[in-house]
Amino acid sequence: MKIALCQINPIIGDIKGNKDKIINGYKRGVELDADLVIFPELSLCGYPPLDLVEKEEFRIALSEASNQIAEITGETGLLFGSITEDYEDNIGTGIYNSAVLCYKGRIQFIQNKTLLPNYDVFDEVRYFEPAKDVFIHEFKGQKLGISICEDIWNDDDYWKNRRYPIDPVKKLVKKGAEILINISASPYAFGRREERYEMLSTLTASERIPLAYVCCVGAQTDLIFDGGSMCFNSNGDLVKIGKYFEEDLILFDTEENYEEIASVERSFEAELLDSLILGIKDYASKTGFTKALVGLSGGIDSAIVTYLAVKAFGKENVFVVMMPSKYSSEGSIKDSEKLISNLGISSEMISIQPVFDEVLKMLNPVFEGTKENIAEENIQSRIRGLYLMAISNKFNYMLLTTGNKSEMAVGYATLYGDMSGALAVIGDVYKTDVYRLAEFINREEEIIPKQIIDKEPSAELRPNQKDQDSLPPYDLLDKILQMYLEEYKELSEITEELKDEATVRKVLRLVDMNEFKRKQAAPVLRVSTKAFGYGRRFPIVQKWNRNF
Amino acid sequence: MKIALCQINPIIGDIKGNKDKIINGYKRGVELDADLVIFPELSLCGYPPLDLVEKEEFRIALSEASNQIAEITGETGLLFGSITEDYEDNIGTGIYNSAVLCYKGRIQFIQNKTLLPNYDVFDEVRYFEPAKDVFIHEFKGQKLGISICEDIWNDDDYWKNRRYPIDPVKKLVKKGAEILINISASPYAFGRREERYEMLSTLTASERIPLAYVCCVGAQTDLIFDGGSMCFNSNGDLVKIGKYFEEDLILFDTEENYEEIASVERSFEAELLDSLILGIKDYASKTGFTKALVGLSGGIDSAIVTYLAVKAFGKENVFVVMMPSKYSSEGSIKDSEKLISNLGISSEMISIQPVFDEVLKMLNPVFEGTKENIAEENIQSRIRGLYLMAISNKFNYMLLTTGNKSEMAVGYATLYGDMSGALAVIGDVYKTDVYRLAEFINREEEIIPKQIIDKEPSAELRPNQKDQDSLPPYDLLDKILQMYLEEYKELSEITEELKDEATVRKVLRLVDMNEFKRKQAAPVLRVSTKAFGYGRRFPIVQKWNRNF
Repeated sequence: MKIALCQINPIIGDIKGNKDKIINGYKRGVELDADLVIFPELSLCGYPPLDLVEKEEFRIALSEASNQIAEITGETGLLFGSITEDYEDNIGTGIYNSAVLCYKGRIQFIQNKTLLPNYDVFDEVRYFEPAKDVFIHEFKGQKLGISICEDIWNDDDYWKNRRYPIDPVKKLVKKGAEILINISASPYAFGRREERYEMLSTLTASERIPLAYVCCVGAQTDLIFDGGSMCFNSNGDLVKIGKYFEEDLILFDTEENYEEIASVERSFEAELLDSLILGIKDYASKTGFTKALVGLSGGIDSAIVTYLAVKAFGKENVFVVMMPSKYSSEGSIKDSEKLISNLGISSEMISIQPVFDEVLKMLNPVFEGTKENIAEENIQSRIRGLYLMAISNKFNYMLLTTGNKSEMAVGYATLYGDMSGALAVIGDVYKTDVYRLAEFINREEEIIPKQIIDKEPSAELRPNQKDQDSLPPYDLLDKILQMYLEEYKELSEITEELKDEATVRKVLRLVDMNEFKRKQAAPVLRVSTKAFGYGRRFPIVQKWNRNF
Repeated sequence: MKIALCQINPIIGDIKGNKDKIINGYKRGVELDADLVIFPELSLCGYPPLDLVEKEEFRIALSEASNQIAEITGETGLLFGSITEDYEDNIGTGIYNSAVLCYKGRIQFIQNKTLLPNYDVFDEVRYFEPAKDVFIHEFKGQKLGISICEDIWNDDDYWKNRRYPIDPVKKLVKKGAEILINISASPYAFGRREERYEMLSTLTASERIPLAYVCCVGAQTDLIFDGGSMCFNSNGDLVKIGKYFEEDLILFDTEENYEEIASVERSFEAELLDSLILGIKDYASKTGFTKALVGLSGGIDSAIVTYLAVKAFGKENVFVVMMPSKYSSEGSIKDSEKLISNLGISSEMISIQPVFDEVLKMLNPVFEGTKENIAEENIQSRIRGLYLMAISNKFNYMLLTTGNKSEMAVGYATLYGDMSGALAVIGDVYKTDVYRLAEFINREEEIIPKQIIDKEPSAELRPNQKDQDSLPPYDLLDKILQMYLEEYKELSEITEELKDEATVRKVLRLVDMNEFKRKQAAPVLRVSTKAFGYGRRFPIVQKWNRNF
């Protein structure tokens, strides 16, 4: 069977636009003589639709669009993801996450999703009922075993601890499936594509059945989908793979012999760069922004974000503002100017000092006699935020925030100051990884000025301030954070490994205490398995970890 | 059987503190000669613990504390809520939301929760496995049927459409339960207590079994729990009820005859006031704030929030700042001063004009030649936010935001400006309800100055600006919002009822488009069945409703 995998980039809720993408993809598949053209999970509404699922008008619109799609089909099959309803028993939501198969002008078969992920960024049990059973559909003489995303992630040959008691794909195999198809929408983090490959290769090798696994691509607010659709032959060899971070159509003939593909992931830095650029680009294009704005401090974070903005928007659409105060070092300006010239972008310099002085003067009746503290530092950061937001509001620039994951973790950032913006571009990238990115960007020529990479990190909010005055060195901090946030390790385990208990304890306390800042942060582009945001849910008011 | 219901206010994660509350409550119950002392759902860790559940150290600490609680028990039973684990089959999380019954120094019986709510603010499927079965426990010659919160909310005599196929309470009754006990943690919204009463009364009347239903009290960040624990006799009569919005201990003798209690909810205004005051109070006391700060505009929202702050903190701990600009009317200042004097609080006036002028001067190189627009309006709001945050940071005031639900819905608020603060006190209260609150507060004497109530709402960010210049009248707006947000009605239905399609369409678009602002808003005290925040999850980037 010749299967065309259409790796599309839908916009959530844009049913008309997504329908057109599906119809166009189908037409291309037909031209290529495919027997079946397949699209990702929930491709008609975009993934994740979240509470839109609860809107009846939304579900009706999807149902109408599904019928319109079915109507244009001929002999070639078209399989896409949508939402279907069935209220037979008045229990539960009656709503399903479904794979819809059409040909000859009609919807011929629907397979609902059995395993509903409900962890990290996934809330599918909130919306959907699980499939009551799985069924084989015979099409053009071949028995298709169709499943949706998570359905294929519960193989007991691969997992020691399983999430679910049922394995729908095994059931399909038992029922005689000859070709496996999985339509998917699985957000990316480095290592994830390799993991998919391992799991799917194990499965197809042990079941001796070919698999077409189609993924979506594109960013949906904070979630980034990387494409990389995969096709396996019945030996478990990967024989076709879709482009990374781009739309693509790949053709897979289950009868044909292909060369095996050896590698599915590039370097950490290459993958990370592409995901961040796609994240910015899609936020902008899907909301209508065409220009970006960044506040350049002279530090590495804003330098990297500016570089990413140039990649996403083009240099003519990026505007940066330098906002020095009396605490800014001369180096900061010089280094920023070097970056501006390297990138060929337009810029402006606006001092915050006169406004800062005026604010202090106005606050004097209240502040008089107090000692300088964090209040004065935050005022500076907030004036910068105010300038940037004013420019953004005036000219409709998309303001990018520049805080990294290490800072967001420990609250080393000012609410309504440097945290202002539409998107926290590197909010899921540790400071040490920001340096890795800089080195990678400079691998052929110096784009990020070496001085910016070499200087000691400083917020420059008081004389001679250095990040390391109040934080542990970033290599230690990031190790602790990585273990705490992504590896789910806790005080005892981290201390056992890194020794320095006082530092570990301090860092964990800071992480827990700063939930209130992250609640009010811009959405963070998710590039790790545990990003700040939707997939990480901690109470703001809580005392765990503060008492012990 | 004599049952003491301990309606406690736990702090999430404060295992030691909550343990002490449980032990103290038990001791009081023993003194009162109770046979059994019962505590709310997850009372040992606080509800909802969210992702703390995923921390192994947290679960171990809970298990240790449970054993310590069990050790102090004698003949009197002690039933409390905690998390337990059982990994018999290596499938799923192996973690349960449990009712733990102790006596004679040991944990004697554990009943896990069967029905796991996973809608609105609830995510229990994310953390817990459902109970495999329910069991009767015989204690002092009586057969106890113990269930947890949602378990009792699936009665098919009461609900036309049920959420779950199983009814664990019916199963307990079939197994011979003679006394029903439900330990609960159910967030409050007006009407909810009446609904609980109706449902539980129907259940106990039809099963002819008495019920002790113990609730928690207190606010956990945005969620407010109202207490009001209930006891029903086997005729379905409510015979005991716990205090509202306060800790309480009530004693219920299943053998005794009591008078029936006629009413369970007071007026909308009285209930709303108490919930908001508790919400502020608990956020402060659980995070360590002892003083509040409000920016007084002269409008009704900030007046009401200031009044609530006085009720929560005491007048000596509330500080307000008036921040006029050249667009501020004289009335605004006079009215604010009247309120300040009525409430007896301290205040300061700090003009934003000099800073505003300075900011415009500094931005002139970028802004020159442009027309005034929203940018200049937002700058003013952000200078106010900056002043308030500076004072908050300097003196550790808890800054309260003053935006109401109508404004938050349509985005009539400035990010990093008037949206700055720790808690959005009236972010779930419609503008029209803010007026109702004001009238109620003034029912005996004028506390909120009449001029503040009577004047036309204005943001005063440009000359002669009125809210109604850009928004529909609040009574219409609030009707649309109520139908859209809380009653899940959609364009077609709302238009059918209210006619004015253009206005309805505009409002729905505004609601959907402003998700990005709400993402960065302070936590909103939840007082309705659908508040902005954790229980309402929409994509920020999406095109539903913008295309049609």
